[in-house]
Amino acid sequence: MAKFMDVHTGFVDGTEDQLREVHERALAAEASEGVRFERMWLDPEAGKVFCLSSGPSKEAVLRVHDKAGHPTTEIYELQIEV
Amino acid sequence: MAKFMDVHTGFVDGTEDQLREVHERALAAEASEGVRFERMWLDPEAGKVFCLSSGPSKEAVLRVHDKAGHPTTEIYELQIEV
Repeated sequence: MAKFMDVHTGFVDGTEDQLREVHERALAAEASEGVRFERMWLDPEAGKVFCLSSGPSKEAVLRVHDKAGHPTTEIYELQIEV
Repeated sequence: MAKFMDVHTGFVDGTEDQLREVHERALAAEASEGVRFERMWLDPEAGKVFCLSSGPSKEAVLRVHDKAGHPTTEIYELQIEV
């Protein structure tokens, strides 16, 4: 399993309820792809969301976001962590 | 204390040793600013580093990176987390 960070934009003034909904929809969709979303963070001023996940591939993570209704194309494989 | 994600570019083909050095230099500089670096992740293909920290302000976190020799201007305050 690899680790990934994906980034979403356009969440200016996003709330905790909205982020929770994004997370719950992702959790509901992740099992079919073998992905696990660990944590999501929102900067409501910049409208940025960072999602930390593990899974078999970038494509699998992006498919989960697609299924959950929050597609993005910006994703990084975090090969190294300290 | 607020939570922050800052982003560095230009670490293409970066290694675990390099990331560990970035982290250790940040840890050595953080106390004077009341900052705590929690985790750093590197995508060596994209050359991106993500740093998760807590501290009193964006400026304090950026000053630590400046002092440690790894300046960046891209930082987000993670007001919301799930």
